[in-house]
Amino acid sequence: MDLSQLTDRLNTGLGQLRYGEAPDALYEPIRYIMALGGKRIRPLLTLLGAHLFTDDLDPVLKPALATEVFHNFTLLHDDLMDQAPLRRGKATVHEKWNPNVAILSGDVMLVRAYELFLDVKPELLAYVLRRFSQTAAEVCEGQQWDMNFETETEVTIAQYLDMIRLKTAVLLGFALELGALLGGASQEDADHLRQFGTDIGLAFQLRDDLLDVYGDAATFGKRVGGDIVSDKKTFLLLTAQAQANAAQQATLAQHVGQPVTDAEAKVQAVRAIYDELEIRPQTEALINTYFQNALQHLERVAAPAERKKPLQQLALQLMDREQ
Amino acid sequence: MDLSQLTDRLNTGLGQLRYGEAPDALYEPIRYIMALGGKRIRPLLTLLGAHLFTDDLDPVLKPALATEVFHNFTLLHDDLMDQAPLRRGKATVHEKWNPNVAILSGDVMLVRAYELFLDVKPELLAYVLRRFSQTAAEVCEGQQWDMNFETETEVTIAQYLDMIRLKTAVLLGFALELGALLGGASQEDADHLRQFGTDIGLAFQLRDDLLDVYGDAATFGKRVGGDIVSDKKTFLLLTAQAQANAAQQATLAQHVGQPVTDAEAKVQAVRAIYDELEIRPQTEALINTYFQNALQHLERVAAPAERKKPLQQLALQLMDREQ
Repeated sequence: MDLSQLTDRLNTGLGQLRYGEAPDALYEPIRYIMALGGKRIRPLLTLLGAHLFTDDLDPVLKPALATEVFHNFTLLHDDLMDQAPLRRGKATVHEKWNPNVAILSGDVMLVRAYELFLDVKPELLAYVLRRFSQTAAEVCEGQQWDMNFETETEVTIAQYLDMIRLKTAVLLGFALELGALLGGASQEDADHLRQFGTDIGLAFQLRDDLLDVYGDAATFGKRVGGDIVSDKKTFLLLTAQAQANAAQQATLAQHVGQPVTDAEAKVQAVRAIYDELEIRPQTEALINTYFQNALQHLERVAAPAERKKPLQQLALQLMDREQ
Repeated sequence: MDLSQLTDRLNTGLGQLRYGEAPDALYEPIRYIMALGGKRIRPLLTLLGAHLFTDDLDPVLKPALATEVFHNFTLLHDDLMDQAPLRRGKATVHEKWNPNVAILSGDVMLVRAYELFLDVKPELLAYVLRRFSQTAAEVCEGQQWDMNFETETEVTIAQYLDMIRLKTAVLLGFALELGALLGGASQEDADHLRQFGTDIGLAFQLRDDLLDVYGDAATFGKRVGGDIVSDKKTFLLLTAQAQANAAQQATLAQHVGQPVTDAEAKVQAVRAIYDELEIRPQTEALINTYFQNALQHLERVAAPAERKKPLQQLALQLMDREQ
């Protein structure tokens, strides 16, 4: 399984999806956001999960695409809720059209995601949709916790990790579990793959948090320090707040939750405290723990080692550790 | 089948549904809107549709409730899009909480609606969900057309009727078709029942338009003339605009689409033109056509006449023609 060939196949499949014709204001935003691109990680995980157990990926394609349509539905509604102006460098749907269009075209995307499962064979369909529905609700729970945390003063590290698990990781886990189920895996193997995906998702999100502070702006593609400027309660900030001495607490309190006069100065001051507290190696250690846990779950799956390689390769790519 | 006993059974069933626990901001709005009440017409239609063919309504209850959860999801998102302050006399969700809570708790309601179908027997599930998904997308299309029409200058009567068919009628049609399918009806009978429900829905919406202008404020429960004040392009207004002579056109143009200085005067002036053009009897005639079409579809269904009575009774209730 060549990852780029599979991605091409997914993009061809996505290009052939028909969401609906009229009214334009309902369906054009769906075509727009789906065409913005992205790495198609979730459907790729579904195909690779299925390929551990079967060579026949044709029946897996549409359910795999369902995870991508669902993911883009969450991006569309989240961008509106977060009032984000840009998505992958282009205007977000609520900016290009308006908030009502974003609400309603998102709603239809969720419906279309469900429809893409309906060719799953009857004896599996109810279970697959139960797991998908549970995952979908969890993703919404994660987004609500994320919004809650913006105004809550006491957020624990455990709460933060649970939030990113729900908001980001469970969908990666489901994408793999789905592939396993459709490929004919045992429940045990499907569980291991789900946990592989969930742990990769947690590691990936923590890595994203880390890159926001320590990344190279050119490679990362976002402004470095954005989370610090916006007082986002990330693993880095929460850990720093938990470990800071009195002087460091005072410096943090001067910047966090205060009106920003000099964003660059704020980033430098908070990053200086992160450096003193060695937040970076602590975060890297946690990322590595999740990553190793993920690989162990994959190891336990009863499938040929050769077939696991593309999944290991994709996991390394996601961690930016390609070899 | 006693309608009020069935409604009690539905309300008991609704009271037992669990949407989720935490975070509160996600699930409390769902419990809130579901507890606002209403006549539970859609799940009632599903139960009555099934009862034409079977006595075992237990497996029908949850799918029936799915139509009610879905309907309330559309109310929640529509109220946000329409910036409506009140729903059944209580604050709407986006007013009581905020717009983001309304978006996200609505999203979860759509997921929960799908979940309520998942006990449908495997050989029917995919087809039921395909029909539900198609209906759900059509309801969204109807809402988008409705919003489009607010700013479009040229809306035809045919376009308006298609809009209310999508926004309101198809869900009533699906509710009945669902009951028929779950009750074991033939495809032909399921189609007749869907058309019965769709025609009743069209008649019901037109009657709502009529009551807005000619209803008794106390009975109707809304301010009479609201559609006129807000320039809503209803069947009444579109028909009047199509049939008005030059003088009537001029009077209409003085009021429609103009800033409102005296709402009462506007309502009286537009209603006077409706009276001159006999818009009321024309609307009543169309309502009656749909209503009679509906009853003919019901007549053609291969089920005992005795079992059709509660559906006829409910249809009459919806038309406020109880005998």
